[in-house]
Amino acid sequence: VTNSANIDPGLLERLKAAAGPSGWIDDTVAIDPFVTDQRGLFRGKTPLVLLPRSVDAVAKIVTICHDTTTPLVPQGGNTSLVGGSVPFEEGGEILLSLSKLNRIRSISAANNSMSVDAGCVLANIQVAAQEVDRLFPLSLAAEGSCQIGGNLSTNAGGTSVLRYGNARDLVLGLEIVLPTGEIWDGMRTLRKDNTGYALKHLFIGAEGTLGIITGAALRLFPRPTDITTAFVAVPSVAAAISLLSEIQAVTGEQTSAFELISRFALELVLEHIPETRDPVQTRAEWYVLVEVSAPDRAAGTRIIVEKTIARAIERGRAVDATIALSEGQAAAFWKIRETIPDAQTREGSSIKHDVAVPIDAFAELVERGTAAVLDEAPGARPCIFGHLGDGNAHFNITQPAEMEPTDFLDRWSDVNRRVHDIAHALGGSISAEHGLGRLKRDEVLRYKSDVEMELMRSVKRALDPQNIMNPGKVVSP
Amino acid sequence: VTNSANIDPGLLERLKAAAGPSGWIDDTVAIDPFVTDQRGLFRGKTPLVLLPRSVDAVAKIVTICHDTTTPLVPQGGNTSLVGGSVPFEEGGEILLSLSKLNRIRSISAANNSMSVDAGCVLANIQVAAQEVDRLFPLSLAAEGSCQIGGNLSTNAGGTSVLRYGNARDLVLGLEIVLPTGEIWDGMRTLRKDNTGYALKHLFIGAEGTLGIITGAALRLFPRPTDITTAFVAVPSVAAAISLLSEIQAVTGEQTSAFELISRFALELVLEHIPETRDPVQTRAEWYVLVEVSAPDRAAGTRIIVEKTIARAIERGRAVDATIALSEGQAAAFWKIRETIPDAQTREGSSIKHDVAVPIDAFAELVERGTAAVLDEAPGARPCIFGHLGDGNAHFNITQPAEMEPTDFLDRWSDVNRRVHDIAHALGGSISAEHGLGRLKRDEVLRYKSDVEMELMRSVKRALDPQNIMNPGKVVSP
Repeated sequence: VTNSANIDPGLLERLKAAAGPSGWIDDTVAIDPFVTDQRGLFRGKTPLVLLPRSVDAVAKIVTICHDTTTPLVPQGGNTSLVGGSVPFEEGGEILLSLSKLNRIRSISAANNSMSVDAGCVLANIQVAAQEVDRLFPLSLAAEGSCQIGGNLSTNAGGTSVLRYGNARDLVLGLEIVLPTGEIWDGMRTLRKDNTGYALKHLFIGAEGTLGIITGAALRLFPRPTDITTAFVAVPSVAAAISLLSEIQAVTGEQTSAFELISRFALELVLEHIPETRDPVQTRAEWYVLVEVSAPDRAAGTRIIVEKTIARAIERGRAVDATIALSEGQAAAFWKIRETIPDAQTREGSSIKHDVAVPIDAFAELVERGTAAVLDEAPGARPCIFGHLGDGNAHFNITQPAEMEPTDFLDRWSDVNRRVHDIAHALGGSISAEHGLGRLKRDEVLRYKSDVEMELMRSVKRALDPQNIMNPGKVVSP
Repeated sequence: VTNSANIDPGLLERLKAAAGPSGWIDDTVAIDPFVTDQRGLFRGKTPLVLLPRSVDAVAKIVTICHDTTTPLVPQGGNTSLVGGSVPFEEGGEILLSLSKLNRIRSISAANNSMSVDAGCVLANIQVAAQEVDRLFPLSLAAEGSCQIGGNLSTNAGGTSVLRYGNARDLVLGLEIVLPTGEIWDGMRTLRKDNTGYALKHLFIGAEGTLGIITGAALRLFPRPTDITTAFVAVPSVAAAISLLSEIQAVTGEQTSAFELISRFALELVLEHIPETRDPVQTRAEWYVLVEVSAPDRAAGTRIIVEKTIARAIERGRAVDATIALSEGQAAAFWKIRETIPDAQTREGSSIKHDVAVPIDAFAELVERGTAAVLDEAPGARPCIFGHLGDGNAHFNITQPAEMEPTDFLDRWSDVNRRVHDIAHALGGSISAEHGLGRLKRDEVLRYKSDVEMELMRSVKRALDPQNIMNPGKVVSP
């Protein structure tokens, strides 16, 4: 069964030929996983999935699309949470998967860099770095299936941003197939290069709307071996922010994670996820998962963390804490943090947010956000967690206990609007790390100035005047 | 005496009115420092220097320029080394100095951020950060007079890039007056914000050709208090690179400087700069100035540096070293590094390069570059120094001892060409931290692909279709 929609069959044959033998799928059933997004919010349609095995094949495909004004959706691991990587329902777009372009091209420990194809799975890149005693720090829940091209196209965040920055900050160079089909070779591995506009930054975070990332030169780091992980009960969000300042004052960039977990989030995990237990004896409303890491075992991070937390307890900024005595115990702490979304799903439906504010506005975000949500949806249960060190809250709301899951989801837009308005009023962002994709493309118009939107559109028009690259994502035409 | 060139006098009066009382200079003598570049390589002409005191005044001025297609040169501290901040000789451009827009707008220690006007002098920003016990790490020779707007427009480098990144990496948000005269308010102070294209990165490093930076939200860091500075004699550049790897393996990002100094560079300083002395007893061909810094005094950086250097000496990667015992001694080490350009000037004329290569190609750059220079200009004396940690060499060549200074300078282009060709062949950049400006605008065409240049031009056309923003810099029309 093939589904050729409104695309000319001759064109489909030319595209298949460009992708090469076994480089395409046109069976509707086999296509289904490519057109269904991670959360099941969107299910699109395409007559053809292309899986080219070389950059030249990608360039050939895009050239054909350019010459025939055929829209194209580039896709990595398809783990987007905002519908950025699946086509629309009309079936008029070709899907181009980078998954077979998955070679590690080169690696240099001395230069702390590696060059990879866009389709490399993130976890494989982490392993390749480790094999030369280096760290590639990007780390996130989907790392076993997401691809680096998608990570860069969405400027992915994750748990290591506090120390190492967003995906953007880990890129030295890029290789791009432009909307014309031309290849831009920007695969430089330099720390410093001031020879014109920062083109790579245009493509990073553009969600495939300006061109297709086919290769990347990445930064590597010394691998930390002295890692101290603590689970700290704190009396309030404000206390957690003070603790962050205190720990950074003594460890600086070695503070590698500072994750906030609400009591309710912890309770959901303890209830729904097997083999988890409360890490601290004293009950509190808030917890932070702190990680400090240094390259050398002699760094003594454990003593520094112990002292800082002891002082915080004396000053009333923490109430209790457990410092992991083994890697297993540290992993148990991380399991709590990482299974929150899963536990939340088991508790029923939830309305999600991915907001960021300046860190000194975080307590106010939580306070005002909670009040607004309870006002909008009485009985809803805020399950607040996230990357406090970066000001990024996954301000996710679990449904009231006695409600129909879908009835709660019907409130999605209204609840979103209240939380987004507050985040915006506090100088924040309505999409800290997930991007705009399709889900937030129009919502963002409420918060961005016309000047900013018009700047974005002028860039889009300049690079993709035919609007064939992932059209309808990020910016409306 | 006024000089109105080919600009309509009525227009000049409107521009003066927009800049406000005492917000302009039209006296040729008073204008002179604004149109003469730092190195004296370029001396331009303008009928009018505007010095607006508010963002609105800047916007008014640009609106007038937009409506009348009048070209404009934005200028910060005028310390550009590539002629980026001065007008051309024809006198048809208005000069807009940001120097009176020099307020620190706000500062938050908790959020590790500060918001400033573009005309703030870099040193004043450093002091303001220090007053709230934070570090703004950008540091370079011109910091007493250069302005942050210029630093960001040129994506300045300096001595702290190894640890804290280029100027680009220190920016959270920007405020821009666009070529239309509209103001883009992108003054966000967020660590994470994935709501569309990375517009701020377009303006950073664009040397004023896409819009005028009027404000910036900057990142701050914990202030290091445990600082260890060492002056290490090494047998070769390759040994220096090994030492870099070894010191980073144990201190990670706490390696905050790793500066290479050749024996010849050290000798020039010892000869020409008063109150300097050789810091190490054993003579070597190469030296590195190493700095390791941590926020807390308990970090023990001194012991780590001592151990690492001792091991390097055992393994033949270093021959001798002195670790500073006081701040005064550390300052003496830095004085050597920082007075090299001055010492070089006193020795005669010199042909300069600002190249970067991947770190593992640095030794080859030095070797091949030196051979090529001596082939091109026999008797010339390479005075090599720079930010080895970033792969950035100031590969500067002092004239042969017995030559007329100007005769040597006549060889500038030929010598440049040889060194640039080698840097490029090694995957490097011909302008690591100084930008393109006017000096390297055409030279870069030799090394950039047509695809890349056309991408740059399409961005320029999209944002500044009239080509009124610092025309003729970075990209030729």
